[in-house]
Amino acid sequence: MNTTCPSAGNSPAFIDWMALVQGRIEAALARFLPPQEAIPGRLHQAMRYSCLNGGKRIRPLLAFAAGELTGASAEKLEVVSCAVEMIHAYSLVHDDLPCMDNDVLRRGRPTCHVEFGEATALLVGDSLQALAFELLAREKLGEPSVQIEMLRLLTHASGSLGMAGGQAIDLDAVGRELELPELELMHALKTGALIRAAVMLGALCGTPLSGEERNALDRFAKRAGLLFQVVDDILDCTASTATLGKTAGKDSAADKPTYVGLMGLEQARSFADELRKQALDALGVFGDRAHRLVEISDFITHRKF
Amino acid sequence: MNTTCPSAGNSPAFIDWMALVQGRIEAALARFLPPQEAIPGRLHQAMRYSCLNGGKRIRPLLAFAAGELTGASAEKLEVVSCAVEMIHAYSLVHDDLPCMDNDVLRRGRPTCHVEFGEATALLVGDSLQALAFELLAREKLGEPSVQIEMLRLLTHASGSLGMAGGQAIDLDAVGRELELPELELMHALKTGALIRAAVMLGALCGTPLSGEERNALDRFAKRAGLLFQVVDDILDCTASTATLGKTAGKDSAADKPTYVGLMGLEQARSFADELRKQALDALGVFGDRAHRLVEISDFITHRKF
Repeated sequence: MNTTCPSAGNSPAFIDWMALVQGRIEAALARFLPPQEAIPGRLHQAMRYSCLNGGKRIRPLLAFAAGELTGASAEKLEVVSCAVEMIHAYSLVHDDLPCMDNDVLRRGRPTCHVEFGEATALLVGDSLQALAFELLAREKLGEPSVQIEMLRLLTHASGSLGMAGGQAIDLDAVGRELELPELELMHALKTGALIRAAVMLGALCGTPLSGEERNALDRFAKRAGLLFQVVDDILDCTASTATLGKTAGKDSAADKPTYVGLMGLEQARSFADELRKQALDALGVFGDRAHRLVEISDFITHRKF
Repeated sequence: MNTTCPSAGNSPAFIDWMALVQGRIEAALARFLPPQEAIPGRLHQAMRYSCLNGGKRIRPLLAFAAGELTGASAEKLEVVSCAVEMIHAYSLVHDDLPCMDNDVLRRGRPTCHVEFGEATALLVGDSLQALAFELLAREKLGEPSVQIEMLRLLTHASGSLGMAGGQAIDLDAVGRELELPELELMHALKTGALIRAAVMLGALCGTPLSGEERNALDRFAKRAGLLFQVVDDILDCTASTATLGKTAGKDSAADKPTYVGLMGLEQARSFADELRKQALDALGVFGDRAHRLVEISDFITHRKF
């Protein structure tokens, strides 16, 4: 399980913090997901299989780090992190289906439809999406107006003008030459929107940010999201399937546009460094309060899977 | 298009009201759905194709009728009706996929995946679900606490303990003998949960109901939802494909459990009459304010498609 990843750039304290958050998220997901004894049992079993698998939990880590800016409680951060992580998990289950990427391996295990069948996998994704939003509506997270704002952000980030829209652009792009701005738009939606939502929801769990701080945090989140994707493309072509826990080289094999394909490996690495610098610049306004976000930026840049 | 259905049991005034609501819903959906010029265009085109098709709009009709109990405005009722209808439309798109019911005809037209491909149909359903909840979070519907309550109801009704869960029970039941209580649970989730949500969201658009009124309305909604399903089973085995606008006889052909299969046609008809009586009894507490809900119960009982 890829729950920890000692990385050259990160301190032991950060590695500990990361493991702590990852452990909290695993436990909170286990609590928020319906038990597999609840009818329909097979669906609930498959939902748990798809969420409780020791993922990296990058989005929860970002939410917790952003929550440190605003003094948010761990209990609230768990709720919003689980909501975001359920959206992420549903998108992976649906993306792995035969009509999409047709992938059989995810985090070192058979994908949901391989293990439970396509029809159940379809319903797993549908149910996880509903449960993600239900958590934000059901749990106590502050004033109702704040919860509404969280729901507005996460629903928008998930839909056709966010993550699902990015996936649709990706579909249309297979086998076609994309220019850099198109590739950037695709990723801004496909992975960037949910990462931005994770950061913003984490911050919304605490005391309100000023408008200037909010803009700075969003600028950070945009650059961090793109950085995550560029590093993903680099790893897709440099790491092994065993290290990644998912099929390596599949994007280039599927003739999908990637930063490495468009820029070459060295240029993509320079671009990642530049994005990291921009992300850190945006955090300047927060001073020391942003130290976890700084550390996560390093982690995203130097991760090995 | 099945937008009107003169029915033996309904007055001309009701028929006019129904056409008015259906027209409002069609226009509101067209307004709330992203334009097909917005990127990604093909996804938005397919979302519009799947929603703007002159459906019966039973759930919006129920929401509008329940809204008359509480003096709700048409503008708010449009929003909650569109949210519920988008959830319904997404469920149809996903249910029609080859890995589920593999159906090619819906409301007299090719199903979404036949017209746009499976991958796009998958994303259409995913995006419509997100948009449904986004509407409830984004539009002005009253106090934030009321909007949160609406979101809580609709997310729960859509997920693994609601509609998607009913679909999973249905999957597991194919080719297996079901007892009546199991069949009733399946339908209570698969179609009942969303119908209850439609009624409750409609009422929540106006002045608050008392606890007693709320319970009575929920009792009505449960019986009306089951009534809708029993009549659906009767129509599936008695009406033609041309009248239904979808493949007739497909549930019995697919060896799916139905009320007609379990009770026989005449018994199923008596059961429908009994459910209609129970539904109307529950409305007693509202007096004349419930006249639209009474008329809809008649419409659901006597509809021909």
